[in-house]
Amino acid sequence: MSSPCATQDSYPYRNEPIWSKTEKIIARKAFDAALGRELHEVIQEAKKMASQIKEPADLWDLEHYLTERRKEITRKYDYRYSQLSGVFGRLLYEKRLGEEELRGLREDKLKPIRSFAQFLAKYAA
Amino acid sequence: MSSPCATQDSYPYRNEPIWSKTEKIIARKAFDAALGRELHEVIQEAKKMASQIKEPADLWDLEHYLTERRKEITRKYDYRYSQLSGVFGRLLYEKRLGEEELRGLREDKLKPIRSFAQFLAKYAA
Repeated sequence: MSSPCATQDSYPYRNEPIWSKTEKIIARKAFDAALGRELHEVIQEAKKMASQIKEPADLWDLEHYLTERRKEITRKYDYRYSQLSGVFGRLLYEKRLGEEELRGLREDKLKPIRSFAQFLAKYAA
Repeated sequence: MSSPCATQDSYPYRNEPIWSKTEKIIARKAFDAALGRELHEVIQEAKKMASQIKEPADLWDLEHYLTERRKEITRKYDYRYSQLSGVFGRLLYEKRLGEEELRGLREDKLKPIRSFAQFLAKYAA
């Protein structure tokens, strides 16, 4: 009799695709690039907002903006292989990532990514 | 028999000094001036921090700075007559307010204000 515990240890979620070493490198690079671009965008916006502060309300608007963006980024950029389809799907949908950056991932990864991007586009329409 | 309720309604805290109309004007002016100066200081610091942002960590440092300053200012600037001795005492101690700005307040107001400023100075030493 096979041990379910041993199976769970080696791979906890049966239906999840396995990421090869090459795919992990591609995923990490695409993830970091999108995160870097988004952070750069926030930095530019924060600098712009700060330079335009005239009164205290503008100061707390900047604080609120930063807090919201930090929470959103933390929530969005979840680098767990079990979450990556959703993460990349959202980034594709938001045009923060180009499909060419995912080139090299196998179809079992690309299909759910595209599928989630399409779902978000349909849901937003 | 006098009614304790009526007494409480007319003045809830027996030992608190009564602020005259003139004193209220002086207090409000001094309070607003100190608050204005402190907010101006935060605005200048935020602009400086934002202009020096180079990486994401600097962004979240700015957010943290703004959140802490907002909380501190909200806690410190409490315009209730029952709290003003403590508020002005702290502002004197922090040199955010000059004694000349409180000129016109009667001794029953000035004494606890100075007293609290001295207490803070002694406590900090």
